[in-house]
Amino acid sequence: MSSPSDSLRVTFLGPLASFSHQAALDLFPASQPTPPTLLPTPSFADALAAVQNNTADYAVVPIENSTNGAVVQVLDLLADRDSRCSDLAVCGEYYLTVHHCLLVRPADAEGVEDPSTLYPRIAKLYTHPQAWGQCDTFLSTHFKGVERQDAPSTSKAAAIVANTPLTNSDELPAAIASPLAATQHSLHILVRNIEDRANNTTRFLILRNKSSTSRAVNSGEGRDFYPHAGPTRKLKALISFTIDHEKPGALVEALNVFRNHGLNLTSIGSRPGQVVAWQYIFFVECEWLRGRNEGEGEGEGEIVERAMVELKGKTGKCRDLGRWGDRLGG
Amino acid sequence: MSSPSDSLRVTFLGPLASFSHQAALDLFPASQPTPPTLLPTPSFADALAAVQNNTADYAVVPIENSTNGAVVQVLDLLADRDSRCSDLAVCGEYYLTVHHCLLVRPADAEGVEDPSTLYPRIAKLYTHPQAWGQCDTFLSTHFKGVERQDAPSTSKAAAIVANTPLTNSDELPAAIASPLAATQHSLHILVRNIEDRANNTTRFLILRNKSSTSRAVNSGEGRDFYPHAGPTRKLKALISFTIDHEKPGALVEALNVFRNHGLNLTSIGSRPGQVVAWQYIFFVECEWLRGRNEGEGEGEGEIVERAMVELKGKTGKCRDLGRWGDRLGG
Repeated sequence: MSSPSDSLRVTFLGPLASFSHQAALDLFPASQPTPPTLLPTPSFADALAAVQNNTADYAVVPIENSTNGAVVQVLDLLADRDSRCSDLAVCGEYYLTVHHCLLVRPADAEGVEDPSTLYPRIAKLYTHPQAWGQCDTFLSTHFKGVERQDAPSTSKAAAIVANTPLTNSDELPAAIASPLAATQHSLHILVRNIEDRANNTTRFLILRNKSSTSRAVNSGEGRDFYPHAGPTRKLKALISFTIDHEKPGALVEALNVFRNHGLNLTSIGSRPGQVVAWQYIFFVECEWLRGRNEGEGEGEGEIVERAMVELKGKTGKCRDLGRWGDRLGG
Repeated sequence: MSSPSDSLRVTFLGPLASFSHQAALDLFPASQPTPPTLLPTPSFADALAAVQNNTADYAVVPIENSTNGAVVQVLDLLADRDSRCSDLAVCGEYYLTVHHCLLVRPADAEGVEDPSTLYPRIAKLYTHPQAWGQCDTFLSTHFKGVERQDAPSTSKAAAIVANTPLTNSDELPAAIASPLAATQHSLHILVRNIEDRANNTTRFLILRNKSSTSRAVNSGEGRDFYPHAGPTRKLKALISFTIDHEKPGALVEALNVFRNHGLNLTSIGSRPGQVVAWQYIFFVECEWLRGRNEGEGEGEGEIVERAMVELKGKTGKCRDLGRWGDRLGG
């Protein structure tokens, strides 16, 4: 049997059964020969700090949702204004489709064959505020006027329902949460996939420590956390930089560096630099086809390194935040 | 005396005494010959819809905060995915420095000369969740461990304190809110400017209807809401577009159009397109020096119109969201 020190330690934003937990479970399955140790943290900052301090090997954090856009708290941590995450690098991405379910206590669903016969007895709904909007069609069709109670997370909403004493059978509580939350809190899934949009997807980044001393991480150079998938066709890189705002054209000039090196810009984000008002830290993601450097004795990452050299001459603070295999286009 | 129909109608996100209300008051002073009618709305969507439907002349909405970044709800409305704001155009901007004050009931402050002598008697603090973080230094110095209660707005926090009955004089309530909220709810300003950052500024956009039938708006072509300030040195424009994500280099190519026409890119934002996952609507803001087209018989806006023609060939949906005088650089 493996010693605990061989077990990969993975941090994510808790509580247990959060969507981050689901992503971490998918990426680091318990079925591996040495099961990983999954560590929920109270904040994104704590998840990243653990990797920076080498008390964890990987952090799994959401960066973007297909409907709601960027997760700015994570971008702000990657902006690293106070140099607290300076050794972190992105080494992978993961796309998780968000599914919401209507959950009830198992005793309430006993003997119920048609779920809709239970609807009139549900008197109170619990979920995270964002989920109300994501399930609007289902809720306005079947639960118009039913009392709604906000919870700090969908997982917590499930916990509240699970812990409600069985008293009045005509005023049942129900939660909107994930199948994982149902398992975690022993609830019954009354209806699956009640979300409006079938393609509501959250993209996660996997972060490691560039100067990690962990054998488990170094042996695969951060690329082996996807053992069940083959190599990808495209590679991606994330780069952050600041520019001289007084210089006209400085931003376009910086972006042209990517084109000059054959890197296709796929997204641009910005966050306040928080030193001088209205000066930003830009986050640029780019991609290129794997193998285009082969035969010239160059590694896959050298295309980015050459772009970085040119970018450094045209930007202020400029940082290579990592490279990884694209999991969207395959 | 002027008839009510001459009064400019201005919408903003309420409640009364919100920061949007302060911006609207600064932009449309009550001291004008025909005082404007200020109309608080329950949502940003309602503020914009009123202008689209010509039931208001202007909307004043926050677009960006120097610390927290973009106001994505407003960007999502400007993205106009369902063509509900298609006649709106930005016609101005305004920078409001955010100041927080510690507010108490006037009776509690009676006879108090040194504000700090009242601190130990304050047992409960109310404010909007974002304000806790913005006043962190002050609060952790003087109110460590004091109970905190979230309110839906800083103005509402002031209202709660104002409406708390005067009972136990050793468990006083206090609110963190603006000087305007103090006036609105007849509270006493115990301490001014308790925010951590002196330069915490919110930028507002002023929106009008391009096809407005309002005489008041058309007479000034949307440029006369700033009667107390002179013409600006720089002009700005906001443009939104989508790109062909399958075409490498499409984004950089679109951005180069701005450079080719002498328009300096000052910011780029993006929001999910919400049609296909991971395809975005980009928001580009650019600026140029006033008067650079003079002598060629061109209006100030023609530089943007020429760029738009070229941009249309290189983007998907592409929209000119308006031009206005820069109020940051002067």
